[in-house]
Amino acid sequence: MPLIVTGTIGIDTVYTPDHGHRENVLGGSCTYFAAAASFYCEPIRIVAAVGEDFPDELRKTMEQFKGVDHSGLEVRKGSKTFRWGGKYMENMDQRETLYTDLGVVAEEPPVVPEQFRDSKYVFLANTHPSVQLGLLEQLPQRKLAVADTMDLWIDTAKPELMQLCEKIDGLVLNFDEAEQLTGKRNPVTAARHILEMGPKFVVIKKGEHGCIIVHKDGISALPAFPTENVVDPTGAGDSFAGGMMGSLAREGDAGVDPTSFDAIHRAVAHGTIIASYNIESFSLDRLATLTSHDLDVRFDEFSRMTRIG
Amino acid sequence: MPLIVTGTIGIDTVYTPDHGHRENVLGGSCTYFAAAASFYCEPIRIVAAVGEDFPDELRKTMEQFKGVDHSGLEVRKGSKTFRWGGKYMENMDQRETLYTDLGVVAEEPPVVPEQFRDSKYVFLANTHPSVQLGLLEQLPQRKLAVADTMDLWIDTAKPELMQLCEKIDGLVLNFDEAEQLTGKRNPVTAARHILEMGPKFVVIKKGEHGCIIVHKDGISALPAFPTENVVDPTGAGDSFAGGMMGSLAREGDAGVDPTSFDAIHRAVAHGTIIASYNIESFSLDRLATLTSHDLDVRFDEFSRMTRIG
Repeated sequence: MPLIVTGTIGIDTVYTPDHGHRENVLGGSCTYFAAAASFYCEPIRIVAAVGEDFPDELRKTMEQFKGVDHSGLEVRKGSKTFRWGGKYMENMDQRETLYTDLGVVAEEPPVVPEQFRDSKYVFLANTHPSVQLGLLEQLPQRKLAVADTMDLWIDTAKPELMQLCEKIDGLVLNFDEAEQLTGKRNPVTAARHILEMGPKFVVIKKGEHGCIIVHKDGISALPAFPTENVVDPTGAGDSFAGGMMGSLAREGDAGVDPTSFDAIHRAVAHGTIIASYNIESFSLDRLATLTSHDLDVRFDEFSRMTRIG
Repeated sequence: MPLIVTGTIGIDTVYTPDHGHRENVLGGSCTYFAAAASFYCEPIRIVAAVGEDFPDELRKTMEQFKGVDHSGLEVRKGSKTFRWGGKYMENMDQRETLYTDLGVVAEEPPVVPEQFRDSKYVFLANTHPSVQLGLLEQLPQRKLAVADTMDLWIDTAKPELMQLCEKIDGLVLNFDEAEQLTGKRNPVTAARHILEMGPKFVVIKKGEHGCIIVHKDGISALPAFPTENVVDPTGAGDSFAGGMMGSLAREGDAGVDPTSFDAIHRAVAHGTIIASYNIESFSLDRLATLTSHDLDVRFDEFSRMTRIG
């Protein structure tokens, strides 16, 4: 059954300390999410907008991921595509934003097309929580809804974020953001507080340090896949979410409860693996050549290296 | 067969943001290590020195851990016991040293007593690498030698640390220290560089983010045990090392190669679990009431929460 993602499609320029830079490559949360999810289930439906300036070449890059339905991609006349420029610091865990040209992202949000309104699995990539709420309301047949958020909305739109929390099954956010949202420094305590706001589960992302899952039925933690091959971390969180939601949709279609602790734990492992591939190149380059076999090999390796009992 | 540890026994004063403070409690690397290791194997032999001022009460605290042989504990007339005062910051991952009174630690290092020279499993807790080398030479029958180190020695005694690396099987150090020692930001790359200096394996500790093992035969990563109950992180690294070495000694005695990747991976999981208990109280309070059953319960829980395949 269909997995839908709402978010951005952007044109990125990225500087790295060790691997040079790339200008005007495909980026955006929707893009990374959909490419990653396409390895696990189909169709993946995209709800996003770009401007008239969106290059054909980047569109072709998107279209190479089979199973992604681009019919919801809105091209706005007279508008500009979202653009982001960033520079990674020496430790690759911190980055500086060089510029953000919001373009269409500052305009009215896209509408969920009629043909997408029966979507069952929903991922609301990071944007203003009011926009996320508005999109969610257009998806009445959802079985699973998960949202991402960021520090900006915790600062400026906390009431709306709290409203969103009442309506979603899961929230994905960074370690620092969980602390910011709850005032709790311990990640497990912070996540428990978020569960009280509504979601059944919270995934706290810690980048190279892995993640913690806090679910009403249990807690688990996984490391990141230890790798030396880190070229560009852009899209790590979105490809992680794509792998996670793709796995949940696949399990949901196979009759498993996609909100169950076990399904989410497995899904997070899949997210971890596809994110570890994503960061091996700029933009979607690595995902474009990735195979299911590659994913299986690394999943098995990850499974062996975290197994202790 | 005996496990020997060389290091400090100290008197600590610790301030925490949420749980008040404690004055003049038992601390030191040897102390935490031995208490933790005593749950896995025996005897644990201690090589350390204290001053005339070492209180009977703290000696009794040490002696409650069965299987720890204190006959190597040197009490120096006219000398003072090592004292450390520290204050944990809000995030509990950073601390400020309030004072360090080196006392006996600034004097001649203790000598390995004759009756301890046949020790098979050796842990050299953090001190000047020349001292570690000197102690190691007094243990010619060792089957496994592992050392800890710190930023101070990487800064001030790198040649001696490199010499030590040629003679040990394993090195345990913090994430930042591995970068400092090798100039490599990626933990796996840094650890590989350390392997080239001599050890068969490196354990990179990341505190609340778990650890990474890089061994000549493989790589693995484990999260920390996710817990809300963090009172005082003092001794986390030493109790981790104690659990790890205790597990390796136990497996070594059972015929397993204690330098093998699999044995070290399991040992690190045991270290993770006992460290997670240690931080639930000040000083050795939690370890003093801990049972093997408690360890088994949490090990099983940790095993379940990290199992993905």
